[in-house]
Amino acid sequence: MKRAVCLLSGGLDSSTCLALAHHEGYECFALSFDYGQRHRFELVAAARVAAAYGVERRTVQFDLRQFGGSALTADIAVPKHASVSELEAGIPVTYVPARNTIFLSFALAWAETLGAQDIFLGVNALDYSGYPDCRPEFIEAFSRMASLSTKAGVEGARLTIHTPLIALTKAGIVQLGQSLGLDFALTHSCYDPQENGHPCGACDSCLLRLKGFAEAGLTDPLVYP
Amino acid sequence: MKRAVCLLSGGLDSSTCLALAHHEGYECFALSFDYGQRHRFELVAAARVAAAYGVERRTVQFDLRQFGGSALTADIAVPKHASVSELEAGIPVTYVPARNTIFLSFALAWAETLGAQDIFLGVNALDYSGYPDCRPEFIEAFSRMASLSTKAGVEGARLTIHTPLIALTKAGIVQLGQSLGLDFALTHSCYDPQENGHPCGACDSCLLRLKGFAEAGLTDPLVYP
Repeated sequence: MKRAVCLLSGGLDSSTCLALAHHEGYECFALSFDYGQRHRFELVAAARVAAAYGVERRTVQFDLRQFGGSALTADIAVPKHASVSELEAGIPVTYVPARNTIFLSFALAWAETLGAQDIFLGVNALDYSGYPDCRPEFIEAFSRMASLSTKAGVEGARLTIHTPLIALTKAGIVQLGQSLGLDFALTHSCYDPQENGHPCGACDSCLLRLKGFAEAGLTDPLVYP
Repeated sequence: MKRAVCLLSGGLDSSTCLALAHHEGYECFALSFDYGQRHRFELVAAARVAAAYGVERRTVQFDLRQFGGSALTADIAVPKHASVSELEAGIPVTYVPARNTIFLSFALAWAETLGAQDIFLGVNALDYSGYPDCRPEFIEAFSRMASLSTKAGVEGARLTIHTPLIALTKAGIVQLGQSLGLDFALTHSCYDPQENGHPCGACDSCLLRLKGFAEAGLTDPLVYP
């Protein structure tokens, strides 16, 4: 059984990605990050999703609030909008400097000690927030670097970073999750959840998620205001 | 004044690298890592060196013992030898999976929030321990990936990873440090220090350091057994 490290935030995308890797027969090892994010509630969702698939999950803790520079890790308001058509062009303030580079670096470390040559990452470059580290060219460059950085790589292992959602619409991701039997009620996408953990319904992440469910003709089981 | 993030472990190499960046007129920001390393004592040295140059220093904490796979982060003995001629060929057990990738990723995050386009890293590919993530091809691949991963990169900033020691012998590094006025007594290189913080004198790192001082015709001020 081939081992795979699956980055799991507990959101719709990473949960669908884990469901897919599990469906494809990989022995999955879920990796989450407690990095000082405003929406730390997502880790509760990550734990639920990992448990649903019976996979081992580890959480790496560090504090990106040391560097700030993002609405998710500094005292900057998360933008709210009435609809997805109002999302601003360009890279939004919820971008976290170097976040996916850091996340993938830890995945690389764990993959090496597990003897895994596969990493699954639920990035999406279509209905997405405009983050540079969700684009195919970044993933390609990271993969190339990874094979030069590790003992496994030097010894000939060829790490593959799987990004099966990268070219899907949000509706396509919802449909994929549905087809895999993912329980969407376990997941959590909001950047700025209410105190009870329920999503705000107005941040970029909520709006894109709701658009995906609407276009897929499905109802999001989460409770919105 | 151009800003630079300088990775600073407190060892001979990273301390010389910081001294050089400081000498070249950069406003330096030192970055250290408390990652569960056996030789955590190096952080004391990093603090001393940063203080000597009057630079701000931050320490990112995380625990690579979660993944293990190295004599520096797992219950694996640090190899000891009588002389540098006995160092084993290949990648030794002190290699830490993906360590420099992780370190540089955090440097990238801080550089972006500082508006810095320069990172200094004291890697050395000549008199070194055989780590894959100390080689020029890794640095080149990381640089390429970095410019694709960040908002700064997308907006046209061109990050430079400076590795001024990469082609020097250990003796050359000692001579460079000496010429820059670095106080070697502040630094610490041992992978497996004694309880009093003094170096063991027999690990790869001690042996390479001692070889460097000997070949440079200088005396290492540290106290060896």
